[in-house]
Parts: sequence; structure tokens; C-alpha cells
Amino acid sequence: MATNPLKKIELNCDMGESLGRWILADDEAIMPHIDACNIAAGFHASDPTTIHKTVRLAKKDNIQIGAHPGFGDLVGFGRRTMLLSPEEVADLITYQAGAVQAFCQRQGVTMSHIKPHGALYFYLLSDQKICTAAVEAIKAFNVPMYGLPNSIQESTCASLGVPFVPEIFVDIEYSAEGNLIPPAKSKPISPEECAERVRMAFENDHLPAQQPASATTTKPLNLKGKHFSVCLHSDFKAAVDNVKAVRQMIDSINNKNV
Amino acid sequence: MATNPLKKIELNCDMGESLGRWILADDEAIMPHIDACNIAAGFHASDPTTIHKTVRLAKKDNIQIGAHPGFGDLVGFGRRTMLLSPEEVADLITYQAGAVQAFCQRQGVTMSHIKPHGALYFYLLSDQKICTAAVEAIKAFNVPMYGLPNSIQESTCASLGVPFVPEIFVDIEYSAEGNLIPPAKSKPISPEECAERVRMAFENDHLPAQQPASATTTKPLNLKGKHFSVCLHSDFKAAVDNVKAVRQMIDSINNKNV
Amino acid sequence: MATNPLKKIELNCDMGESLGRWILADDEAIMPHIDACNIAAGFHASDPTTIHKTVRLAKKDNIQIGAHPGFGDLVGFGRRTMLLSPEEVADLITYQAGAVQAFCQRQGVTMSHIKPHGALYFYLLSDQKICTAAVEAIKAFNVPMYGLPNSIQESTCASLGVPFVPEIFVDIEYSAEGNLIPPAKSKPISPEECAERVRMAFENDHLPAQQPASATTTKPLNLKGKHFSVCLHSDFKAAVDNVKAVRQMIDSINNKNV
Amino acid sequence: MATNPLKKIELNCDMGESLGRWILADDEAIMPHIDACNIAAGFHASDPTTIHKTVRLAKKDNIQIGAHPGFGDLVGFGRRTMLLSPEEVADLITYQAGAVQAFCQRQGVTMSHIKPHGALYFYLLSDQKICTAAVEAIKAFNVPMYGLPNSIQESTCASLGVPFVPEIFVDIEYSAEGNLIPPAKSKPISPEECAERVRMAFENDHLPAQQPASATTTKPLNLKGKHFSVCLHSDFKAAVDNVKAVRQMIDSINNKNV
Repeated sequence: MATNPLKKIELNCDMGESLGRWILADDEAIMPHIDACNIAAGFHASDPTTIHKTVRLAKKDNIQIGAHPGFGDLVGFGRRTMLLSPEEVADLITYQAGAVQAFCQRQGVTMSHIKPHGALYFYLLSDQKICTAAVEAIKAFNVPMYGLPNSIQESTCASLGVPFVPEIFVDIEYSAEGNLIPPAKSKPISPEECAERVRMAFENDHLPAQQPASATTTKPLNLKGKHFSVCLHSDFKAAVDNVKAVRQMIDSINNKNV
Repeated sequence: MATNPLKKIELNCDMGESLGRWILADDEAIMPHIDACNIAAGFHASDPTTIHKTVRLAKKDNIQIGAHPGFGDLVGFGRRTMLLSPEEVADLITYQAGAVQAFCQRQGVTMSHIKPHGALYFYLLSDQKICTAAVEAIKAFNVPMYGLPNSIQESTCASLGVPFVPEIFVDIEYSAEGNLIPPAKSKPISPEECAERVRMAFENDHLPAQQPASATTTKPLNLKGKHFSVCLHSDFKAAVDNVKAVRQMIDSINNKNV
Repeated sequence: MATNPLKKIELNCDMGESLGRWILADDEAIMPHIDACNIAAGFHASDPTTIHKTVRLAKKDNIQIGAHPGFGDLVGFGRRTMLLSPEEVADLITYQAGAVQAFCQRQGVTMSHIKPHGALYFYLLSDQKICTAAVEAIKAFNVPMYGLPNSIQESTCASLGVPFVPEIFVDIEYSAEGNLIPPAKSKPISPEECAERVRMAFENDHLPAQQPASATTTKPLNLKGKHFSVCLHSDFKAAVDNVKAVRQMIDSINNKNV
Repeated sequence: MATNPLKKIELNCDMGESLGRWILADDEAIMPHIDACNIAAGFHASDPTTIHKTVRLAKKDNIQIGAHPGFGDLVGFGRRTMLLSPEEVADLITYQAGAVQAFCQRQGVTMSHIKPHGALYFYLLSDQKICTAAVEAIKAFNVPMYGLPNSIQESTCASLGVPFVPEIFVDIEYSAEGNLIPPAKSKPISPEECAERVRMAFENDHLPAQQPASATTTKPLNLKGKHFSVCLHSDFKAAVDNVKAVRQMIDSINNKNV
């Protein structure tokens, strides 16, 4: 297994997803409550000045700053798959993470991790060559990668010696087989339920399945005894409430167990 | 004056100005003859995979690798001015130079300098606030800036403690007042004449003026006794011949004088 | 003077300024209250699917549909000037208005007008050659152009035989000399005051000046006895209220006078 | 079967694939030898000024002008598949074909056809819903669609009442099963062989297969007794020679048979 650098359960959130005039999420309200942010890097969202602003915001609150590279598709917000070659995927990541890293450098802080965004995140899961190319690009930054536990992302990080942070999503649904449902096809999950899902993941190593409603995912999350990160979307309507509820649950678990 | 890190006269060239399917210059033929390259960073030209390829090419020939940030305008090749704020200019530079730096990092080499491209280069000359913002962004990379001798670029580098490499252009014309004529409005200059202009700059501290044909620029270049860089365009028809002729002249001057 | 096709005072609004995932204004709430919309065309805002959606929305409410071409600068929302040649400006307009026209065609409605957006709108005012090129591009669509009364826009339309709709802005300020203050530098104007400004323009042919607060613009609007269009921004916080208040005032004036 | 508007065998070529400073093909040398051009529309290649220039060039030589819409991916030249929804594909076509149509309108000529480009062309073949959406978008322009004979493209045009021009490619290979090999994976085909392939298609209704070298495609082209269009790439090294050789062969066949 890849080295997991986490010392406790943590909360990460995608930040900096505005684009010039278009403001997407309430980053200022969310930032103080999270441990790590993933900053969009100008291909699926954000722009140089937005990245800079978001890096300053994270620095002010002493939040870990990660890069969130995505497909070059502003209109689709990086949520439409583009069939790129392994080399193109690697170069996409180097370029975007390099840009975010430079803003950290300018602000005197260190970039802490890289997490592929949206359709790119899932594209890595679909093909070993793509995943290997991506992890090799990440390795050059000497930072951990965030991804799904027990996945090709994790095994590739392990074999290439890249630290890996396993994460769960609690504001979107999982299929019965344990696959993530894309935001557009997932039902809204209340702040209380988001928090409850963190508890379930920690205690039971399972999350509820989309269908049937009463079931949990058939596969365990494989997070038993491990520290993991919880990801919340910042662009959901209830984002600020989700973040606060999950923060409280994570703190409660950490206080008891870590 | 800003510290000048050059130890002799050198030759720099803009490289990596292709974009995906569109190949612009014969980078492979030019690279071995130059000392430093300025790699387009994806906003006015180039793309992640082209940058990576160009960094590898430069590394193979042991050429200094600089970033060449420009305005976000592929259609205009960064040669159309965009009226950006000082903050936007600084962030544009941080973003693009950060991307190039990351490819250097991935290839285990060090980014050596930053030189603004095209209309952005001239935009810095037009306004002190713009220039200051740009140089501050460059300072965070801890590399020299390339620019025009005796200009606001040079004085700003001096006051902010950023090393500065003065450069002359010998394949485009200067106005009588000593201003550069944009490529589109300049007459072609033969390889021999390019080389001859290097000699004139070195020995006389003056270059020919566009009008009248027999005159030289009224202002001296202010390079007397200094080491400077000579810039050639890689996208001109005679680029490879220009590079070879100028290389020979520079070597000849360096051999006698350095 | 250019032919003015209006039969009464009307209200126009910029619509379709979302971009994929980023929603900018409440177009559905605003559309029913206006007479004409100017749809962003994919260069400074909007995208093919957003344009289509906006055209359908306008068709449902039987609103006049215009194209709103802008500079190719999503990050700057078309509000940063790009120094383009007259030919480039004309081609920019043909391209974008052609795209909007095609969605009208697909929905079986007719594109009714063209209005340049943001910095492009002002770029036309700055140079006769630019303005001539733009109006010639518009002429090929056989629709009126919207612009500032008594301006180079209006005189150019007159000399080229293009119908012209003069418009005033009532939710941003004017300088004492009668020039528009850009949104970022203008103080917010309340819905009531927006409506009141329509009345002032109609009755007094003057609007309040930014400085001093008590004064009106020194130049008359030159709308005395003419029908004009009133433009409101859809992306202001109070947009829906502004639209309702101005609608009521326009209807009241039209009922008494037309 | 869809109505085929051709009165003889013809030659079509992709034109206007430059982008600003980047010149791709020798459009001026090719244009006089072809019957119809497909003009890139700014998403995978070209820009407003290049489109305008190409429309003028085609008009001068009295060539049929078609739109060549592609995926919004300049870096990949529209040759990387993007997984778009049917609605997004339709809107992409409306937008781009509308832009080309407007330049025709400005030059007083009529847009003659639409042909999807690159990966978009093949995306239509992969899914009936995608293809239906695309053909419905094309129908609104009241022009024929170009595509592969005996394909889902042809059957969809037939069922929606859109005229259809079947085309063959003679400068890239076909698989034994009769599928087109992408340019990057196809071996170069000489001008003489390109011409010979036109003859084979016309006389035998079969083309050579990539593997084994001696075989022909197992499926007939289904062009027996029909008029078809022959497509050549303008961006291949031998493009001008290919065009001249194929032109001669087509003229010879047309003279004998039409």
C-alpha cells in the first residue's frame, strides 16, 4: 500500500472554482472549516488571479493547499471525459500543478498535494497506462496524491512510491457496487446525513448505496484503521452547512480516536 | 543598475511556439546553436505536451531554459495588446512561468530566466505600475529577467533586486528613436546583416535605423562594456540561417574579448 | 441620422451571460419584463448550449433577440480592451452574430439586432476605422445596431445605412461630460432611481452626473422626441428589481405619449 | 436512402485549418482544384479572420463552401474524442455552422453543406442519439450533410429528410472491415495511389485494406451507380500533388460516365 501521510481524519474541499466574473462557491465561508483545499488550475475552472486569491485565502487560514488539475474544458467544467493519451494526461497535470505551485512559492507556502478533478479523476481509474502516467507526473512534485481507497490510483501510487491519501465523498451517492455517482445524477444529501456518512465510513467501513435505499455498498471501503480524507463539494447549495456538519463529526471522531 | 548575470555575449531564441498540430519553427535545427531558449507557456502559443517536448530538447543540448509568458490570446499569438491591470499581469506571469518551471523540475533541470513575450513585453515598457507588478512576480522565481537595455524594465529590476539581462534584436528593425519595430512592420534582415548588427552593437553601441536607411539610432544602446544577449526569432523564414550566422559572429567576438 | 426602428421606448437587457456550470443572472425572472435581449455569443460569456437555452427562453416570452458579440476573453468577461485591427473587429462580430443567428434560425425566429458588448462597445467609440468596420459587419445581417445616442456609432450607422437604436443606461453612472462609467467604478443605483432616470431622460434629455452629485451631465442626451431603448445589466444584485421598476416607468411613459 | 444532391463525382477538401499565426496548409494552391471545401469553424482550428479569408478564397474560385464543425479542442485539433451529450453535439454544430454561414452571407454566397470534423465525425457513428441530434441541427440549415456511405450518418439523414453526400477517403487507409484508419495510424498514400483508389471505388466498389496488403475491404462501399465525393486532407505533405492527381482521375471518370 502507498504511504498515507495523514495523522487523523481530515476534510478537503475543492476551492477556487470561480472564473473571472463568475463566482461559484462561498470560498471565504468554507475555507476556515476545512483542512485541505484543492485549487482549480485554469483548465476546467479558475484563472491566474483567482488561483492567487485562493492561495492567499488558504494561507490566511493555514489550510493545506493542493492543485486540482482537470481537462481543458471550461464549458464542461472538466466533467466531460476527453480521450487523451497517457503522455497528454501527464503533461496536463505537470502544467496545472506547476501553475498552482508557483502561486504557493510566491506566497511563501508549500503546495501540499495533487488531486485530479472531475472526469480526469475517473479517467485515471479507467486505464492503468493513464494512471501510471498521471502518478509519474505527480511524483515529480514530491507531494501525495488524493484518490479513491483500494483503487488503481492507490495501487499505482504504491508501486511508484508516491504517498496516497484515500478519500470518501459524503455529499454524493455511491452505487451498490461502490462506484461514485456523478453530481448531476446523485440526489442531494443533507448536512446531517453527510456527517452521518462520515461516522458510517469510520465505524462500519461501508456507505449507503443509491439503490436499494436501505442497503450499503457491497464492497467495504477498506478504510478500517486508516486515516482518510472526507471530500465535500463547495459548489453545492448546502455546501457551507455540509462543511460545518462534517467538520463537527470529524473533530468528534478525531478527539475520541486519534 | 540591475545585476547582469551574463559572462559573455549570448544568443537567445523563442522556442516551443508550436500549438498541438500546428508546427511553427524548426526548433530541432535551431536549438543546438543557441545559449538560451524562451519557451512559450500555453497562453499565446504552445501547450503542455509541446512545452515538455521543448524542455527535453533544450536539456539534450544543454541550453538554458527560460519561460516566455504572454497574453492569453492564441488567435493573436500574444501580439495584440490586452489592457490588463498590474495584478492581472503579475498573475499571468506567475501562472505561465510556474508551468514551465514544473516541466524543468520534471526533467531535473533548473529554469534559468523569464522573458515576457510579444505585446506583453512592450506593455511592461508602457507603465511603471505594470512593470513593477511583473518584476515582482518574476522575483518570486529567483531568476533573471530578459529585457531592453536602459529601459523601465532594467530600472525596475534594479530597484527590486532582480538580475537583468539586456538584449538586442538583430532580425527586426529599430526606429530612429531606438524603438523596436514589430515583426509585421519590419523589413526582412539577411543572415549576414543580422551578424553585422551584432558587431555594430558590440563595437559602436548603435544599430541601423529603419529611416533613413543610412542612419543609426539616435540613442546609444548603452551596452558599452557590458555582456548582452542577442535575440533572434525562430518563426522567420531565414531563422536557421540567421541563427548560424549570428552564432559565428558572437563566438568570434567572445573569443577575442572575453 | 440613422433610421430608428423603435415605435416606443423599450427595455433591453444582456442575457445568456452564464458559461456552462457558472450561472450569472436570473434570466428566467428577468426575461418576461423586457422587450429585447442581447445574448452573449461565446467569446466573453456563454456557450452553444447556453445560447440555445436563452434563445428558447426569449422565444417563449416573445422577446426580441439580439446578438451581443464581445472580445475573446472569458477571464476578463470582455471588459478588458484588446487592441484589434478593424478587420479583426468586423470578423469577430460576423462570427459571433452568425452563431446567435443560427440558433434563432433553428428555433424559427428572426434575430432582431446586434449590440457590441463591454470593452468592444467602447472600442467602437474610440476610432472611426474600427467603428466603420464593425458597422459594415453588422450591415450584412440586415438588422439594427444598438449604441449610444449622438455618438460615432450613430453617425457611422447613418452613413452606412444601418438602422440605429439609441440607448441609455440607468443602473450605472455617467461622468459630468456624459461618458458612461464602467460597472466596476459606478456606485449602485436603486430600482427607484433607475426608473426615475428613465423619466429624466425622457422629460429633460439629461441624466445625473457622477460628480458633483447634484448636477446633470453637461451635454444633452439628444433623445428629445425620439424613441430610445433603456439598458439594464442582468448581473447586478438588484437586477430583477431594477427591471420591474424600469418596466413600470417605461409603460407609464409609453401609455401617455405613444 | 437519403437524397444525394451530387450530379457527378466530386472532390472535397478541408480548408481554413490555420489558426492566426499558424498556417497549416497551402489553401491557395489547393482551392482551384477542388469542388467543395469544408471550412474549420474556430473550435478545433481556424478563427474569425481565417474563416473570412477562406470564404473569400473559395468564392473567388467558385468553390462550394461547407462548414466543418469540430470539438472545442484546439490543442488536440478536434481529433480527441470528447464525451458530449446529444444536445451539446447539436448545439456545437449549430454554433459553428452558423458562424461559417454568416461569413458566406457577408460575401453574398450560400453555404452549401455541413461536414463534422475529425473525432466529431466518428462520434456521430458511435451512437444513434448523438447522430440524430447532429442531423437535426444540420437540418435547420437546409443543406446536405457529408458522411460515410451506408452508415448511421446516411440512415439518419434519410429518416430525417436531410440530403446526404457519401464520401470516400483515398489518402488514408481503411481497415479490413472497412473502417477508416485515423491519419496518425495510416501509412502515407502516394498521389498516384490516391487517384487509383478513386478508380477502384468507382469501378469495383471496394478499396484496399490496411492488412493484409493485397486484400480489399470485406464490405462493399455501396457506391455502385451513385455519385460520391472524394475527400483529401489538405494538411498532408503531398496534399497539393494528391489533389491534382485525384482531380484528373475524377474528371476522367466524370467525362466518360456522367
